[in-house]
Amino acid sequence: MLSILAASASLLAVVPAHAADLSATAAALRDKALADPTAWDVAESLTTEIGPRPTGSPAMERARDWGVAKLKALGFTNVKVEAFEAPSWLRGAESAEVVSPYPQKLHILGLGLSAPTPKGGLEAEVALFKSLDELKAQPPGALKGKIAVVTERMVRTQDGSGYGAINAARTAGASEASKRGAVGYLVRSLSTDDTRLPHTGGMRPWGEVAPIPAAALSSPDAELLENMVARGQPVRVRLAMASTSTDKAPAWNVSGEIRGSEAPDEVIVIGGHLDSWDPGTGAVDDAAGIAITTAAARLIGELPKHPRRTIRVVMFGAEEQGGAGPAYAAAHKDEIGKIVLVGESDEGAGVVWKVSLPKGSADHPAMQAFASALPPLKTFIEDAPSRFGGSDVFPMAAAGAPVVDLHQDASRYFDLHHSADDTLDKIDKGELAQNVAVWTAFLYTVADSDIDFRALAAEAK
Amino acid sequence: MLSILAASASLLAVVPAHAADLSATAAALRDKALADPTAWDVAESLTTEIGPRPTGSPAMERARDWGVAKLKALGFTNVKVEAFEAPSWLRGAESAEVVSPYPQKLHILGLGLSAPTPKGGLEAEVALFKSLDELKAQPPGALKGKIAVVTERMVRTQDGSGYGAINAARTAGASEASKRGAVGYLVRSLSTDDTRLPHTGGMRPWGEVAPIPAAALSSPDAELLENMVARGQPVRVRLAMASTSTDKAPAWNVSGEIRGSEAPDEVIVIGGHLDSWDPGTGAVDDAAGIAITTAAARLIGELPKHPRRTIRVVMFGAEEQGGAGPAYAAAHKDEIGKIVLVGESDEGAGVVWKVSLPKGSADHPAMQAFASALPPLKTFIEDAPSRFGGSDVFPMAAAGAPVVDLHQDASRYFDLHHSADDTLDKIDKGELAQNVAVWTAFLYTVADSDIDFRALAAEAK
Repeated sequence: MLSILAASASLLAVVPAHAADLSATAAALRDKALADPTAWDVAESLTTEIGPRPTGSPAMERARDWGVAKLKALGFTNVKVEAFEAPSWLRGAESAEVVSPYPQKLHILGLGLSAPTPKGGLEAEVALFKSLDELKAQPPGALKGKIAVVTERMVRTQDGSGYGAINAARTAGASEASKRGAVGYLVRSLSTDDTRLPHTGGMRPWGEVAPIPAAALSSPDAELLENMVARGQPVRVRLAMASTSTDKAPAWNVSGEIRGSEAPDEVIVIGGHLDSWDPGTGAVDDAAGIAITTAAARLIGELPKHPRRTIRVVMFGAEEQGGAGPAYAAAHKDEIGKIVLVGESDEGAGVVWKVSLPKGSADHPAMQAFASALPPLKTFIEDAPSRFGGSDVFPMAAAGAPVVDLHQDASRYFDLHHSADDTLDKIDKGELAQNVAVWTAFLYTVADSDIDFRALAAEAK
Repeated sequence: MLSILAASASLLAVVPAHAADLSATAAALRDKALADPTAWDVAESLTTEIGPRPTGSPAMERARDWGVAKLKALGFTNVKVEAFEAPSWLRGAESAEVVSPYPQKLHILGLGLSAPTPKGGLEAEVALFKSLDELKAQPPGALKGKIAVVTERMVRTQDGSGYGAINAARTAGASEASKRGAVGYLVRSLSTDDTRLPHTGGMRPWGEVAPIPAAALSSPDAELLENMVARGQPVRVRLAMASTSTDKAPAWNVSGEIRGSEAPDEVIVIGGHLDSWDPGTGAVDDAAGIAITTAAARLIGELPKHPRRTIRVVMFGAEEQGGAGPAYAAAHKDEIGKIVLVGESDEGAGVVWKVSLPKGSADHPAMQAFASALPPLKTFIEDAPSRFGGSDVFPMAAAGAPVVDLHQDASRYFDLHHSADDTLDKIDKGELAQNVAVWTAFLYTVADSDIDFRALAAEAK
């Protein structure tokens, strides 16, 4: 009876027969992904057994070994460690306090590339600005001897654009302050939470500008300083910060493959980043991305027959302070023409709420098969092409590789990222599984088809 | 025309004429309170200009002077500073980390009365229990040389009862661990948040038990330790904690009065506490209580004629580590018979969601006048008598003074209290004003009536 039904079902298959197979398998993989514990287990393992793992730290070496062991244990082949050198700024002891007129401790967290203070710290009057533009309107020398403070607020958004809108306050603020004579720089955390935990992050290289100590203030501390300054008396702050820094720390990209059954040289390169900032355990940034992409590829690897093309998962080894993406693209430049597509999961652990496909590909049967798996996942294909992929894969995209954007809901991401609050408990198991389901369906339809994103993009011009 | 309307309105007054006056004035005061910025300004001033102010700290001395100046500036008379001695435990440097098998820092915050570690810290294997009862089931000596950890979770409740249910894990856990040979004690914060900021708090005196280092873990850190321990290998933790402690720190209760116009010796004693734990700025615990009671009394003090009885606001000077309530009750024991009522605001800055009146008083015209002011404030009078008042006024209640409970919604309070997150930005201006409105209406109806709570309670027996 069952075999008769199965035979009937196969008779119902319409041209293109393979697209219908793709749809059915994508749907089956999606449902399996929703119930699969692998992603949670991977994230739990990395955050518990390794924890924070900034580039250049002993923990990052342990993370490298963890990545190799995990990929092997999950059935990946061709597991590789590719060494490179990357910038590393490592935090030392840090403290800050208002000295007068209202003595109180401040909660700060140094920014990557911050200069240390002189031993014993420095003390100076603050010059407070409500925005970076206000600071930049100051003439040369206007901040001489001052600690410049910028208290601009970040806006909560689903697509993360509130972060981009304010990013220069962290990345460029200290340089702008130093140019005007400041001896220190404090910026309200680029974050949407109201806890006393500041959020760190990188700064642009100093170039010709004299490096100065630079740190993030927690949101409540930024408001406290605003309230003090509003009283009209000079507010003096003491800063003490230590750090070590190098341009050439050892770093590693770790990768493993689900080898293609028919066209193994055609490679889909996906991943997340293995390094993290130091204050949290690097859970949503980016154990989640490692976990999601690894779990998705593994599910596909468990099919009785691997799909046509190879899926390669890369655990990028130096995202936060830069280096992994350019190193990977450089090491694989001869392979770029064979790279079918690149993508990265690095926006936290919120659901994939929309997908941007490479230009001109949405009507291809493979992408139609992918789309057919999406409705239960409450996500959709956006009517705009993909553009970025993620900072570790963008250098490959810039070199010509097609790229996909699986956009995660970032509404809560900036409550957590780059802060001590980036811990495992912030990952929702259901939301994590939704990510794996979307990635699994997508990867499978690309890997088991002959979709040529380059050709489709060229036709769409 | 207006004067004719006013005359008509006064003709409508019914017996008891004074109850109607009480109602009208209570309603007018309520509406004024809802628009009055005083409470916010007081809370902003205390948290900004003084900040954290534990008993025995220089900041607490500044807080005393701040209190005197603030009461005088707001029109209070008979402003007094009453000195007493109180316990003081002051935090030094603290750190904790997992040493093996998974090296990671832990976020801890020492508990009041914790012993310091030996200089250089101590290292030991952890013995983890999911509840205090599990720990207490261990036989003598079972924890010898171990750091005991209790990871019991607190339940979020509107009435704060989730805190009481778990309180012993903090107050008694270290004693119970020490009795069984433990060299250190860590407890999951008694809190409902998921930030990396632990919550401190007091412990019961050690008595005959050997004091050991004891600290709170943040919720994510408690879960991290659970996940490590679940792997089955011994987990070793290094603790380093410093502190200083005395039983006889100088402390002060600061008070001021809105003097009664007809029966000034009949006194209503209300207040909040001026001291705070050290990690936050003592905003919801308890600048809010100081602000609410001060603002309410001040509004009544601005009436063209003061009410019959005196309203005294006390800024209790040592609540967190004990001492202020007993000291105040002892210093005023000869006055107890003249104290009409006591009450305290010390459950945060959430709205007053229900009121418990002294036994037998709800049907008295004065309390009916109070009740008539409540509907717009979305609060109600509970059908159960008041019992507690607050830890600073309870000793007076125990000595015979009638007591009122204005219950605040504590749903969010335990996300914040005793942690670095207890900062001004957590106070909602509208919720704070609702508190002032309830207190103002209540205080006025008691102060301008001859309601005798003792007699009513005796009749109700």
